Amino acid sequence: MLKFTSVKDISDLKKAVETALEIKRNRFAFSHLGKNRTMVLIFFNPSLRTRLSTQKAAMNLGMNTMVLDVNKDGWQLETGMGVKMDGDKPEHLREAIPVIGKYCDVIGVRAFARFENRENDYSEEIINQFIDYAGVPVVSMEGATRHPLQSFADLLTIEEFKKRPRPKVVLSWAPHPKALPQAVPNSFVEWMRHTEYELIVTHPEGYELAPEFMGDIKVEYDQKKAFKDADFIYGKNWSSYSSYGKILSTDYSWTIDKEKMALTNNAFFMHCLPVRRNVVVTDGVLDSPASIVVEQAANREITAQAVLKMILESM
Amino acid sequence: MLKFTSVKDISDLKKAVETALEIKRNRFAFSHLGKNRTMVLIFFNPSLRTRLSTQKAAMNLGMNTMVLDVNKDGWQLETGMGVKMDGDKPEHLREAIPVIGKYCDVIGVRAFARFENRENDYSEEIINQFIDYAGVPVVSMEGATRHPLQSFADLLTIEEFKKRPRPKVVLSWAPHPKALPQAVPNSFVEWMRHTEYELIVTHPEGYELAPEFMGDIKVEYDQKKAFKDADFIYGKNWSSYSSYGKILSTDYSWTIDKEKMALTNNAFFMHCLPVRRNVVVTDGVLDSPASIVVEQAANREITAQAVLKMILESM
Amino acid sequence: MLKFTSVKDISDLKKAVETALEIKRNRFAFSHLGKNRTMVLIFFNPSLRTRLSTQKAAMNLGMNTMVLDVNKDGWQLETGMGVKMDGDKPEHLREAIPVIGKYCDVIGVRAFARFENRENDYSEEIINQFIDYAGVPVVSMEGATRHPLQSFADLLTIEEFKKRPRPKVVLSWAPHPKALPQAVPNSFVEWMRHTEYELIVTHPEGYELAPEFMGDIKVEYDQKKAFKDADFIYGKNWSSYSSYGKILSTDYSWTIDKEKMALTNNAFFMHCLPVRRNVVVTDGVLDSPASIVVEQAANREITAQAVLKMILESM
Repeated sequence: MLKFTSVKDISDLKKAVETALEIKRNRFAFSHLGKNRTMVLIFFNPSLRTRLSTQKAAMNLGMNTMVLDVNKDGWQLETGMGVKMDGDKPEHLREAIPVIGKYCDVIGVRAFARFENRENDYSEEIINQFIDYAGVPVVSMEGATRHPLQSFADLLTIEEFKKRPRPKVVLSWAPHPKALPQAVPNSFVEWMRHTEYELIVTHPEGYELAPEFMGDIKVEYDQKKAFKDADFIYGKNWSSYSSYGKILSTDYSWTIDKEKMALTNNAFFMHCLPVRRNVVVTDGVLDSPASIVVEQAANREITAQAVLKMILESM
Repeated sequence: MLKFTSVKDISDLKKAVETALEIKRNRFAFSHLGKNRTMVLIFFNPSLRTRLSTQKAAMNLGMNTMVLDVNKDGWQLETGMGVKMDGDKPEHLREAIPVIGKYCDVIGVRAFARFENRENDYSEEIINQFIDYAGVPVVSMEGATRHPLQSFADLLTIEEFKKRPRPKVVLSWAPHPKALPQAVPNSFVEWMRHTEYELIVTHPEGYELAPEFMGDIKVEYDQKKAFKDADFIYGKNWSSYSSYGKILSTDYSWTIDKEKMALTNNAFFMHCLPVRRNVVVTDGVLDSPASIVVEQAANREITAQAVLKMILESM
Repeated sequence: MLKFTSVKDISDLKKAVETALEIKRNRFAFSHLGKNRTMVLIFFNPSLRTRLSTQKAAMNLGMNTMVLDVNKDGWQLETGMGVKMDGDKPEHLREAIPVIGKYCDVIGVRAFARFENRENDYSEEIINQFIDYAGVPVVSMEGATRHPLQSFADLLTIEEFKKRPRPKVVLSWAPHPKALPQAVPNSFVEWMRHTEYELIVTHPEGYELAPEFMGDIKVEYDQKKAFKDADFIYGKNWSSYSSYGKILSTDYSWTIDKEKMALTNNAFFMHCLPVRRNVVVTDGVLDSPASIVVEQAANREITAQAVLKMILESM
C-alpha cells in the first residue's frame, strides 16, 4: 500500500480487519518492521486522538515519530500555484513537501476542509499535493472530504460489538453550533458501503451528503423512523454540502437522547469525538452502557497500526 | 504505586529516597522496565523543567513518551459536569481522559490552580477526574494544591547537601508581581513534615497556608528571626489562601539577599524555579556558591524516574 | 568537538565532508554512538527543516530527542543581566540554560538576530550564554550571525554536484518583503572561504556583509556580470548590515529568473529555504532541473548527523 486516503486503497477489507484484530491481540509483535523507519505527522489543524493514536501506532511498530504543527512550529505555508509570494506566507508546499519527504519514510497529514471553495476542498488539494510531491507513502489523518483512519476504527468497532451478521447501522445528523466538515460522514458512508451492513442516513433536508459518497444509500428524513430497530447509532454533525459549509439548522429536536435510543434494538451509540455533550447527544446516552465511544476511539491506535503495517510491508 | 499526587502515595519515604540515590548512580540500569510502555504528558499550563525532566526520566526507563499541550495541540476542554456544550469548548474531559488512557500506560498531568474558586482548586477537580477516569496510573506534574515531583526533588537535594542529621529548613515567602499558586509551598511543607528536619515557615500576615498542609508547623512572621541558624532557605512566592488568590503584599523588604543569608548557618539557597531575579532573590545570592537551585532542578529527573520506576514495578 | 557554531569548530573540513558522505551511504551504521544520549532542541524561532533534520540526525545515531519551543511551551525568558525581573518574563536564561544542560548530553539552539541592536546580535548573546552555562556541547541551529548546519549542507551539496574541481559559486542577493537576518549569507561566505572554490558575492549597494565575514571576497554589483560562467547560483535575501536590519531595496529586477540563469555555465540553483516564489526566484527556475534546493535541504540531515557524530565521539 503506497498511500492511504480512502477505503479504496485497501485491496482486501476483510483481511485488513483480520490484521487489525491480530494487532489488537499483541500490538508489539511487529516491532521489527519499523526499525530505522520514521513517520512525520503534519497537522494543519488541531488533533487529540489522531495525534496520540497514530504516534502510538507507529511506536508500537518500532518507528520513530516526529510531529510538526504547521503554522505554529514551522512557517506559514502557501498552497496556491503561480503565486507571487510577497504576503505573510514565506514557504510554499511545493518545497516543504518534498523536503519533509526526504527526512522520513511515511508522512501523515491532517488538512481539514477550509470552506472557502467546495471545489478546492473536494479536490483534496493539500493531501493530493503531498501524494504528488512527497516521494514517500502518505497517510490521511483527515482530509477535506474523508477521515479514513476514523472509518477503519468505526468498522472494527462495529465488527467487535455487532450481535448479528448484518446489523442495522444508522448515521444520524445532530445539531452543533459551528460549521463542521463532511469528512467523517462521507468517509463513514463510503466504508459502510464496502460491508454487508444495512446502512440508513438520517438528517434534516438540505444536509444531503455528496452524491459521490452516498450512491444509492437511503436517506430517511424522519430521525425516529430511522432509529427503529437500529443496532448502531452513529451520531455526528456536519454542515451542508449543497449550501456549502452553511449551518441550515440548529434544531435541538435532533439531539440524540435516551428516548430516541429506546426506539432502537438496544443500539450502541458511536461518535468519532470530540463530542459536544447535551448538544449532539445527552449525558444520559454518553454515560450509559450503550455508549462505546471510548472503545471506538481506542481502536484508532489499532487500525492506524494496521495501516502502517501494510505500508511498511510493501516498502 | 497506582497514582502519585502527594507524599501520602509513597509507602516508605526513606526507601524512596534510597531508590532515587540508586538511580542517580546509574540512571540507565532499569531501562528494561519501560519497554513497550508509553507515558503521555498532558500540560494545561507551561512547563520547562517538568516537561524535560519527566520525559527524560521516562526515556531513561526505556519508555516512549508523547507530549500533549491541551488548548494548543488538541481541543479546548470542558471540565464542568452537566454542561450544555454550545460554547467554545468542543470536547469534555469525560471523553478525553479515558481515551488518552487507552493510548498509554501512565499519564502525567499538569493543571494549575485557576483562582476562580478556592473550593474547586482545593478539590483538585482536574487531576481527580484523571484519577477517576483514566484507567491507568496518574502522576501529578503539579496540581492546583501540590507539586509532589518538585517536593520529592527538594527532599533529595536536602538529603544530599545537609551537614547535620536534623537541619533547620526555612520556607520563606518573597515578593512577586503576579498571583502564584500555593502548590509548591503546600507540598514542600507536607513533605518536610514527613522528615525529622526542623521546619520554619516565614511570611507576612495574611499569607498563612491552608491548615490541612500546615498542621502544627510554626510560622515566624519576622523573616530575619526565621533565618537565624538556618541550614536551608527555600525562597518562594505564593498568593493568599485566606483572601484566595490575592496579592496582599509586594513588600520588597522580603526579597532574599546576601545580608539575610548572612544571618544563617551558611545556609544553602533553594527555589523551585522559574525565579524572578532581584524580586524574589538577588543576583548576589543566586550567583553565590550558596545557591543550589540548579542541582535541585537536576534532581527533578532523578525523582521523577524513581516515581515512574515504582509505578512500573507495581504494574 | 565541544561546540558547533561556525566552520572554525571543525578541525579538518575535508575529513568532515568525507564523514558526511560516509553517513549518506549508511545513516544507521553509527546508531550505537547515541545510546542513552539525549539531545534537547531549543527553538526561540520557527523552524521546519532544522527541526526535522536535526531530530532525524540525532535519532539516526540512536539518541533520544526532546524539543522545546521557548516562549510557547515553557516560560518567557529574560536574557539581560542585572535586571529586576518584575515584568512579563518569569525566568532567566542564567537558570534555564544550566538546568536544561542537566537533562541532556547535547543542546541545539536556534536564536535569530532580533534587529534591536547590532552589537548584541553580532555578539551572539544567546548562543554564547548557552556555551558558557550549559555544561554540555552546544550546536547552533542558526544564531544571529551564522547558520553553520546550513552552510555545511551547502558545501556537501556543491561537492556532490560540482562538475569541475574549482567551480564558480555566486551568492546573489534577491528581493524580499521582510527584513531577514544575515546569518545564512555570512555563514555561507565563511564556509566557502575555507574551500578552493571561486566565490563572487553580488548585491545592490548598501547590502555589503560584515567585513569580518567578507574578508577579501569580491563584490560584483552588476548581477548579470556576476552570473557569467557561474556553476552555482545561491539565491538569498538579507537586510542591510551597515543600515542595520533595514530594507534598502525591493528591486524586483534582482529576482532570479531563467534569463539570468541562461548567462551561467548551466549553473545549479541553490537556496536555504524557505523561499518566496516569484519574489526571490521565479517558478521557472525552481521547477527546472537546475534547481537542487530539495537535495540541498535533504543534506541537512546528513551534515547534522556528521556534526553530532563528531560531538559524540569526543565525549
